[in-house]
Formats: sequence, C-alpha cells, structure tokens
Amino acid sequence: MSRTIMVVNPNTTRAMTDAVVAAARSAVPPGTTLVGGTPGAGVPSVESHTDEVWGAVGVLEQVRAGEQAGVDGYVVACFGDTGVQAAREMARGPVVGMTEAALFTAALVAARFAVVTLPRRTSEMSHRVLRETGLAHRCTVRAIDVPVAEIAGGALHELDAVAAEAARAIADDGAEALVLGCAGLADLVEPLQQRLGVPVVEGVAAAAAMVDGLLAQGVATSRAGTYAAPERMEPTA
Amino acid sequence: MSRTIMVVNPNTTRAMTDAVVAAARSAVPPGTTLVGGTPGAGVPSVESHTDEVWGAVGVLEQVRAGEQAGVDGYVVACFGDTGVQAAREMARGPVVGMTEAALFTAALVAARFAVVTLPRRTSEMSHRVLRETGLAHRCTVRAIDVPVAEIAGGALHELDAVAAEAARAIADDGAEALVLGCAGLADLVEPLQQRLGVPVVEGVAAAAAMVDGLLAQGVATSRAGTYAAPERMEPTA
Amino acid sequence: MSRTIMVVNPNTTRAMTDAVVAAARSAVPPGTTLVGGTPGAGVPSVESHTDEVWGAVGVLEQVRAGEQAGVDGYVVACFGDTGVQAAREMARGPVVGMTEAALFTAALVAARFAVVTLPRRTSEMSHRVLRETGLAHRCTVRAIDVPVAEIAGGALHELDAVAAEAARAIADDGAEALVLGCAGLADLVEPLQQRLGVPVVEGVAAAAAMVDGLLAQGVATSRAGTYAAPERMEPTA
Amino acid sequence: MSRTIMVVNPNTTRAMTDAVVAAARSAVPPGTTLVGGTPGAGVPSVESHTDEVWGAVGVLEQVRAGEQAGVDGYVVACFGDTGVQAAREMARGPVVGMTEAALFTAALVAARFAVVTLPRRTSEMSHRVLRETGLAHRCTVRAIDVPVAEIAGGALHELDAVAAEAARAIADDGAEALVLGCAGLADLVEPLQQRLGVPVVEGVAAAAAMVDGLLAQGVATSRAGTYAAPERMEPTA
Amino acid sequence: MSRTIMVVNPNTTRAMTDAVVAAARSAVPPGTTLVGGTPGAGVPSVESHTDEVWGAVGVLEQVRAGEQAGVDGYVVACFGDTGVQAAREMARGPVVGMTEAALFTAALVAARFAVVTLPRRTSEMSHRVLRETGLAHRCTVRAIDVPVAEIAGGALHELDAVAAEAARAIADDGAEALVLGCAGLADLVEPLQQRLGVPVVEGVAAAAAMVDGLLAQGVATSRAGTYAAPERMEPTA
Amino acid sequence: MSRTIMVVNPNTTRAMTDAVVAAARSAVPPGTTLVGGTPGAGVPSVESHTDEVWGAVGVLEQVRAGEQAGVDGYVVACFGDTGVQAAREMARGPVVGMTEAALFTAALVAARFAVVTLPRRTSEMSHRVLRETGLAHRCTVRAIDVPVAEIAGGALHELDAVAAEAARAIADDGAEALVLGCAGLADLVEPLQQRLGVPVVEGVAAAAAMVDGLLAQGVATSRAGTYAAPERMEPTA
Repeated sequence: MSRTIMVVNPNTTRAMTDAVVAAARSAVPPGTTLVGGTPGAGVPSVESHTDEVWGAVGVLEQVRAGEQAGVDGYVVACFGDTGVQAAREMARGPVVGMTEAALFTAALVAARFAVVTLPRRTSEMSHRVLRETGLAHRCTVRAIDVPVAEIAGGALHELDAVAAEAARAIADDGAEALVLGCAGLADLVEPLQQRLGVPVVEGVAAAAAMVDGLLAQGVATSRAGTYAAPERMEPTA
Repeated sequence: MSRTIMVVNPNTTRAMTDAVVAAARSAVPPGTTLVGGTPGAGVPSVESHTDEVWGAVGVLEQVRAGEQAGVDGYVVACFGDTGVQAAREMARGPVVGMTEAALFTAALVAARFAVVTLPRRTSEMSHRVLRETGLAHRCTVRAIDVPVAEIAGGALHELDAVAAEAARAIADDGAEALVLGCAGLADLVEPLQQRLGVPVVEGVAAAAAMVDGLLAQGVATSRAGTYAAPERMEPTA
Repeated sequence: MSRTIMVVNPNTTRAMTDAVVAAARSAVPPGTTLVGGTPGAGVPSVESHTDEVWGAVGVLEQVRAGEQAGVDGYVVACFGDTGVQAAREMARGPVVGMTEAALFTAALVAARFAVVTLPRRTSEMSHRVLRETGLAHRCTVRAIDVPVAEIAGGALHELDAVAAEAARAIADDGAEALVLGCAGLADLVEPLQQRLGVPVVEGVAAAAAMVDGLLAQGVATSRAGTYAAPERMEPTA
Repeated sequence: MSRTIMVVNPNTTRAMTDAVVAAARSAVPPGTTLVGGTPGAGVPSVESHTDEVWGAVGVLEQVRAGEQAGVDGYVVACFGDTGVQAAREMARGPVVGMTEAALFTAALVAARFAVVTLPRRTSEMSHRVLRETGLAHRCTVRAIDVPVAEIAGGALHELDAVAAEAARAIADDGAEALVLGCAGLADLVEPLQQRLGVPVVEGVAAAAAMVDGLLAQGVATSRAGTYAAPERMEPTA
Repeated sequence: MSRTIMVVNPNTTRAMTDAVVAAARSAVPPGTTLVGGTPGAGVPSVESHTDEVWGAVGVLEQVRAGEQAGVDGYVVACFGDTGVQAAREMARGPVVGMTEAALFTAALVAARFAVVTLPRRTSEMSHRVLRETGLAHRCTVRAIDVPVAEIAGGALHELDAVAAEAARAIADDGAEALVLGCAGLADLVEPLQQRLGVPVVEGVAAAAAMVDGLLAQGVATSRAGTYAAPERMEPTA
Repeated sequence: MSRTIMVVNPNTTRAMTDAVVAAARSAVPPGTTLVGGTPGAGVPSVESHTDEVWGAVGVLEQVRAGEQAGVDGYVVACFGDTGVQAAREMARGPVVGMTEAALFTAALVAARFAVVTLPRRTSEMSHRVLRETGLAHRCTVRAIDVPVAEIAGGALHELDAVAAEAARAIADDGAEALVLGCAGLADLVEPLQQRLGVPVVEGVAAAAAMVDGLLAQGVATSRAGTYAAPERMEPTA
C-alpha cells in the first residue's frame, strides 16, 4: 500500500528537481514516497519547442530508470507536458502532466481561470494542452516575458510581475483562479493567493495529488490503443 | 489535518448512500473520514431533468447540514452533477461532482473514452457536463435503456448489458477507457475491467480523490465571481 | 384556436410577474391569452446558482398548475433558463426559455451580439446557455455589477450603466445587437435602442413570440428521449 | 398593424412558390398577409452551389421588388439560406432563412435532431448553416439521394425514403426531432410525424413565424456593421 | 506540362485584375502562364454581401470562359472567397480562394495570426472562411474602416492605418503574422513586413502557389459529392 | 533563385528517405533541388509516442545539418508532424509537416475527407494535428492495424486493406477525398485514386509544394513569438 511517485524534472537543474519534489509533498498523504528524477543530460531549462524535445528525452530516461526502480507513478514537472504521452506508453503506472492536472484542478474551483506563464513564446505550449483538454473556453493564457532560467533559484523577485498580469486576467478575462504556468513558480502560491484573493493552482502539486488518487483508485493507463506499450523504449540505431 | 468529506447522495434511497460512501472509501487516505448525506425528502432516484431539480434541492439540504457539522469537502454522487454549482457557493470547502471528476480522470489515462449510462433520456446530462468540461472531442455517450431504480440494490445483473455497450464504444468510437454513467454502477468496476481489458472509471471514487487532493493542496473554491457566497441559502418566501 | 401562454416568473416578486407578462404582450397576436405565474414560495430574485435551484422549483410548481389549468405553452422568464428542461418534460405544450429565445432572435438580425447582464457572478448562466445553443462564437457576455433585486421596481435608473457596457461591447467585441440579460430590464428596450442605434432584444418577448409560433406550427416538444414525460412530477418522499 | 411577409422562392418554378406560401400560412396570424416571390429568371430548382448563385440573384431581385411594394419582412425559402445575408442588407424589415429558422425551432423542442435533405451533394449547405448557427453539436445531416426537381409537384412519393433515413437518424444519431432539408418537402410533415412519432420541423413555416415575431417585437436587422445598407443594390457595370 | 492559371477578379475594375495577376506572378514557376479574368458586368468592388452575389456571378462567368479556353486552374481573388465553391463544381481543374489560401499559409509560419481587412462590415466574410477552415482558434479579424473602392489604384496611402491595426493585433491578440484582408492590399506586403517585423501573407500569391502545387501533384477537385459537376452552368429560365 | 529543400525522414531507414524524396519530386518545379535527410541514430520507423520523441531528435539533427549546408526549406516526412515546431525555431527557412500540408491540401479539393493511417494506436497523432489545424469538423481518422515497419519496402501489398477502409470513410463518414496517413504509403496514390474515384492526397508531396510556394512568395517563419530562434540548438549538459 505504500506508494512511490517520481516527480520528473525535464531539465538538468537539480535545484529545480528539489523544488518540484517539495511542491508535491503536501499534496500527497504522508505514506506516499516522493522521489525526484533529473536527467543526466539535456537542457538547464525548457524555454522553446527545441528544448521540449530534449526535455522529452530526459523524461523518458528518468521513466525508464523509474520503471527499473519500481516507481508506481509519475508526475512530469514541465509546463506544456512534454513527453507525457510517451511516458504513458513506457510506465506501468499512471503518468500525469503538471499542465493537464493544473487545468483540471482549476476547473473544479472556478468557472474561468487564466494561466500566467513566463516567456511569451511558450504560450503555445499552454494552448496545446488547452486543445487536448478542451478547456480553452474557460481559460486564457498570459505571459510575463521572463526566461525560465531566471527563476531557477526561486521566483519571489517576479511576484510583482506575475501579480500584475494575473490582475489583468481577473479584470479583463473574467478569470476567477490562477494557474502558475511554470514549475519554477511554486514559491509564489502563497503570496499570490494573498495578494489576489483567488485560488492559485500549482501544477506539480495538482499532478501529484492526481497520480496518488489514480493509484488509490486502481485506475491504470489504458493499453487499448494510444498508450499501448511501445515496441521499443530506446533508439535502436 | 484529519479531514471529513461528505458524499452527498441526491436521492432518498439510503442503500445508495451506503454504496457511494463505500465506493469512495479506497480512493482517499485512511485518515480521511467519509460521511454520507441522504436528503430527508426528494426522489428515490434521479431519472429525469425533473428529478434533477429535486436532487439539487436535496444536495443543498445536505450541504447546509454539512456546513453546520464542519464538513471539509463534498462529493456530489449524481451523474450529471446536479446541484454542484450551487453547492460550491454554499460550502466553505471544495465540492466536486462525480461526472466532472470521472471525465477528468479518464482523460488522464486514455486518449478517448466513453460514458455508458442508464436511461437513454439521461444522455443529455452527460453531454451537458461534457460541454462544461470541454471533453466532448474525446468522449462519446452511450446508454443501456434501464431505469436507475432497477439497480438500487446493485447492478451486477446489468453487467452483460453494460459490457456489450462498452464493447461497441471500444470498437466503433475508439474508446480506450470506460466511464460508468451512474453512481449505482460502482459494483461493476472490477468485473467490467476484467471483461473489457480497459480502465473503468467510477466517478464517486474519482471525485473523492479529487476533493481530498484539493484539501491537501489547500486549493479552495474561488469566491471571485461565479461561486461567491450566495445572498441566501434557503427560500425566503 | 385561441391559445393561452403562461409567462412563468421563477421568483416570488409579483411586480416582476406583471412586468414580464407586459413585456410579452406585444410579441403575440391579440388572440393569444397571456397569464403570469408566480411561485407561492421561493426567492425574491435569482442572483446565484443557489437561487436558481429554488427558481427551478418555482417554475415546476407553476407548470404543474398550468397543466391543470389547460395552459398551451410556457415562457420561462429567468435569464439562464433555469428549470426549462424539466418544464419541457412536464408540460404537454412547448416551453421556451427567455435566454435561448433572445440568443436565437439576436442571431436573426445581427452577425455578432452581446449579452449585458446584472451581477457579474451570473455571467456563467449566460455562458451555459451559449454552450447549449452553440452561439458562443457570435456572442460575448458583459455585466454591470448590480443585484437583480435593485431593479425589481424598474430598471430605468440603470440605463446609463447598461448603455455604457453595451457601447463597450459594440466598440470592442464587434457586437451589432444587444441582448438584455435579465427579465427585469424590459423597460430599457426603447431608450437603449435610441441611444445605441442597434437592435435590443428582450428575451421574454422573444420567447413569447417563439412559443406562439411553435403552437401555430403545431411543433410540440419531442417525447423521444431527453424530454419524455418524467416518471414523477413531485418529490415522492 | 397589418403586416405583409414575402416568401421568396429562389427558383423559377411557380408551383414551388405556391407550395411555400401555403406552408407558411398556418404559422402566422390571420392578419398577416403572405405573398410569394418568384424570380423572373434563374434555375428551376437549387441543386448545387452553382444553382445557389443564381438563386441568390433571384432572391435579391424579389427583395428589391418587395421593397418597392412595401413588404414588411421576408422568408427565404431555400434550404441553405442562399442570399439571406445580402437580402438583410437590402431589406428595411427582417429576413429569415428557412434553414436557420428550422434549426432554431428544432433546438427548442429537442436536445438533438437531424436534417434529412435530398441530394447528398447538398449536405454541405446544411453544414454551412450549422457552422453559422453553432448547432453542429446537436444536429446531424443525412440525405436521400434524389434531385430536388423530382419533388417539384409534391414529395409524397418519397415518404418511405425520407422516413427510412429519419429512422436511422433517430436510432443511430440520437435525433429526437426531424428537420426537413428542402422547401419542397412540406407535404411530408404530417405523414412523417405520424410514422416517426417525433416532431417534424418545416423551415418555411418556422421562418414565417419568426419573421412575424420579429415584426411584432419591433426587432429590426442591425445596421451597425455586417448588414448595413449596401452602397448599391444592383450591378453597376 | 506548361500550365495556365486564371486569376479571377470578381469585380469589373481592370486595374484590380492587373494588380492581382501581378501579385500572383512571383508565387508560381516561370513556366506557369497567368491570365486575368475580369467580369464583363458586375460591381466595381466587393464591399457587401450584396456585392458578393454579383461577384460570384462574375466569377462563374469567367470560369465558364476559362473552361472553354483550356485554363488549368483558378485563383479567386476576392477576400471572402465568394463563388469558390460554385467554381469548383464548374471547373475541370482546381480552384483556390485567396482567403483560404492565405489562412493556410499563415498557419504554416505562425502559431497565431490576424487578418486586417478594410470595411468593418466585411469582417463577417473573414469569419465565414475561418469557420470553414477551422482556424478561428488561431486568428483574429480586424478592420480599418475604409471602402475597398478607395484602394483601387493602390493602397500605399493606407499603410499607416493598416500598420497601426496590425500592431494592435500583434500586441493584444498575440498575432505573429499578418494576413492582408483584401486583394487590393498587395502593394503593402513589403512595407508592412519591414515595419512590423512579422510575415505578411498576401492571399492571391498564396492561392496561386497552391493552385500550381495542386496541378503539380495531380490532385483534382473531388467529384464524389459536394463538388460534383452541376446539372447546369447557367440560368435556364 | 534555385532552391534546395530537404525532405527529412525522422527514422533511420534509408529506403524510406529515398521514397519520400521521390514522392516530393513531381510536386516541385524542376529547378528546385531536393535532398533527403536521414538521422544517424534513432528508430527504424515511428510507431508510438515514444518513437516520436526519437523521431524529433532525428529531425533536429538533420535540420541542424541542413542549416550548415544552406538548405532553404524543409519537409518533415512523418505523419503526426513530430519535431516540426522545434524545427521551425531552428531553421532560417520554412518548415512544413506532411500532415498539416496534407490536411490543408485535402481541404482545397473536398468538403470532407478522411485520413487512413496504419497502426490504430497512431490515430491520436492525426487527431493532434487536426486540433492544431482546426479541421476536425471536416475530417475523420481511420486505421488499418498494420505496423509501419511492414511497409518499409513498399505498401502495395496493403492496397486492399487501405482501399477497404477508405471506402468505409466515403460511405459512412461522407469523405470525398483521402489523405494517406503515413509517408510510407506514397506508392498507393495512383492505384487508390483509380479504385476509389476520389482524390488521394500524399502529404510529402503536399508539403514539398507548400515549402516551395512559401519560398517563392518570400513568406518566412515568424520570429515574433512561438518560433523565435531558440537559445540553444543542442543539449548543453
């Protein structure tokens, strides 16, 4: 009954891994073990579609390692959910992306909500998950134009910028809750919630709760089609 | 830290309340207390939009009682999520409908899925929640044409009918997971999963896991608009 | 050939009933009798999802009474169309909600249009009907943040506020017609039309015309599924 | 207060004009005068997009004539609503297409419905209006593959074919009402309704009721943008 | 192997025909012959739905002529693609509208983009093609409120106005490329591109490239339904 | 003026590279040079989301090589368009995926169409591109359940299976054109076209024509946001 969930950081920055594991901690019962996964090679942060490719490679590397170590389920801690579908094919247990989890969570507490993400160029990653989840009619996407790398050591210095953009989402888009659009923004949950007076959803915590819930329910990834086990798990040539 | 979640049965059939509390049990940690709520007046099952109105009245009655008793969060155990939005206004803590929870859960484990519900006339309740959640592009709705009342004492005698309809969803709609479209079908999870070989999602369990997760994350219902506390909680005239 | 249409007010404020019956008058032929329906118990205005539940109970109460009195068709005079689907199950004749009627009417005279409603928190009721009717791609929703109760005796004192919001819809959303988002705004039709220079659609009148038209065409509510007669019309326990 | 509505037949077949005027008769009050409009030149039936162009020319010719004769409103009696938007620019009074009217009418009496049209190649005309009205999520389109010209003198010989296709829509698509997808099918309303047991919506009658209702409400076509009066009403070169 | 593509101008202004043929020139290989088509009668510019009807008549006249002259494919040079579907029925070879071509082209180089068109009243023509192509989730429509006739001799005097509206699309809508919403704006491609720093898509060139590509691939218009050859190509009465 | 387009094969099977370069040949003018790109490492065919990750790595490897060699534009020859968005960031010139190109091409010649792909599990890749392009309302996806690897040497032995599935799409889905859902099916274009009597669109050819057209028009990938040049082109750790 004791479960182990790996929180997979798609980038190589270990401080980020520590931060996302910490973010997930309060969202799961004490009996659930959390481990972090950091790719041995890749990119220090995911700021582009190009970075997303390397991020996906890193996710698969960590899931393969997790499968050997007997991990029960996975959180993919990258806004945009890069590698999640491939990881679902590979893993025996459930895999949840922080973006889909954050959107579903926000939808349970607010009629409309907004993502505030970092580089404007990454907005399309949010739109992509909104298309997959179908929640585009209830969610807008906004960005403060700051590189992800700048918050590697914490995001508190961006509190004002995120709060200002979130306030615009509340006033102009009718947002009633906020989704943090980057795994590196977790330390803003409390201060933003106080300043804005609306729920602030952090996707890594949301995903950890959902993986734990899936394990509790015994609901596994379907093998009936899209996520059937792949023929191979690594390049063969 | 110990939480109490009320599983609200919108109908007056106590056997159903016992069944939905049982369905939720495995989905939440042992430290979480589950209580059932059964309306003192209303309808014995919800089979129509008319019944849904009385079901919503019953849900509000139970949530009012729960608020006085210090309940931390609520599951609304009626496929179609009748009363959920009103309950969100009333309750201090989170409220999750079994339908939205089931759809979000299925979306985490399958690219496409199907609801199998009971009376064909209630299909529109599923379509309504699909419009709210935006998942219509990934989910079809099918019905076996049996009244809800017929499964008040258990649904095992409908296993063949549900399995047959689910098999059509898999073959013809590309469904890769099944959502049970009625709180009374919970005892079919195991036998259906074995027969069909795809995940079977039961919404009460799914909702219980999500309420527990929201409480763990400290994500509350937004008060910024749609779900602000209502001016009154009961008829005033 | 002489028809009787009941205009059902979902709240208990008789002045509102008189106003909505008056609003419907010019929209139907002289030979059509209009009667008002006011619930014996409930809420004085509908300002929340919670109020909507009591509003639906009131609608059903009045439709049951109307069925005994031989009413031929019903208008539900509550923006958001609470209770309409249940009323369709109960009534022998057609039932039209003021919201769906207003949206369809606006769609016949304008490519794009806007709803201006009262409390911002009720915007979701408009969005819900937009999802049902599919007209979200042609309609935006705006609110002046005033309680419905404030206009119980007439809305002329809100003319400036509504006109200002409507002007923003015309300028910023491309709206070419206006839909009044509350049954209590009917007295604004003329002054708004003059000020704005665009058609102003009042939903009670729109719904009355549509009920009368359905009766003239002999088009009844379908009994083939969703709106089949319900097993029971009142709580049984 | 006495109104004149022109039912515009887009084709040159006078028997069709007579039939569509007759179809509209019962849908409007006795005090409303109905006149038919038949283009002086054009095509004998509308069976293609090419025919639709000539149909639109004929609609505009008749609306210009109607404007000189003081007509108050117009029904365009061609499934696909060819020329309706141009006619809205030209006419002082409201213009309603039979397709949009039929779809809105069906949406008031059924959760889901189906169009049965004639040549399969004209299905796209229905889909086009479904995109405009947004009702594609509630309506399917089916065709019996018969030329429109074959029913110029009445459609009773196609009753079996239409009924069979409608029955498939009911069984397979969940349709709860039927929309006749051609102005020439009006004589099938009664026999189909009896055979199928679901409402059968005829668009010319539906549109006539809606034009009459718009006139009664005093809701005119918006001049604020899309349907502003055109600079010219006829070719200038 | 040498191909002839006709660029059909839907209006009677020969200077426009020359301009659109010139706009297409660089988009096709040197071996492809381009000819212009100007209707013998019609309207001098297309500024309304009414004009669109005459524009469609003009398009069909020219396609009929082109078919007799052995033309291999057609570009319809009218934003809104009036007559394109009818022309597809008539022509042996492919027919591409400048609007659909521009939207598809923009979608290949930008995640989000905007149309800037001329009279605000013609925005609906863009929305119509966005509904057909499905690209509404990636494209907004803006207008400078100038008649098409004003740019018959060139659009350079509107550069500031178009650039200002495009800049708003980039800043407020997240547009990353611009689609010129009128065949008469072709001379703005270069100066706009320099000023805005984003790709500027001109639809006539885009459509010419696509017609040439279809001919190269041997992909013809489907005759299997919607675009089957029409029974007649001209009015018969 | 002479251009070089690289057709990037995402897998390591050189016979496939040769086949896709050949498929592109007739779609571009004689003056356009085509080169093939085959990843030095990766997977022999793309049959899963896991394979897609390696395929994307291979695409990026080849685009980096192409950029050094002065390639002007790229076709990504993998149904599902893996790596296309990252490649757009990296390449100076345009990048077109075979899937988006095939869907846009089919949309120019048919009102509705269908993809027939190989392993059923890869249907989701088609749905993903349909969501991006917005064409889901006009396209269905079908699969014959055969591994991609089985057609590495040619697909003629699957002609019957593909034709049978395509015939079902034509009869049941209203498809009027066929899109081949795999780069390895190019040799079926001619025989399928003859058998089915509808256009058969091959995506590599379609994409090559579009890249060539973009180069001719001088329309480059937007750098204004989503596809701005990435900070890094390779893993840095």
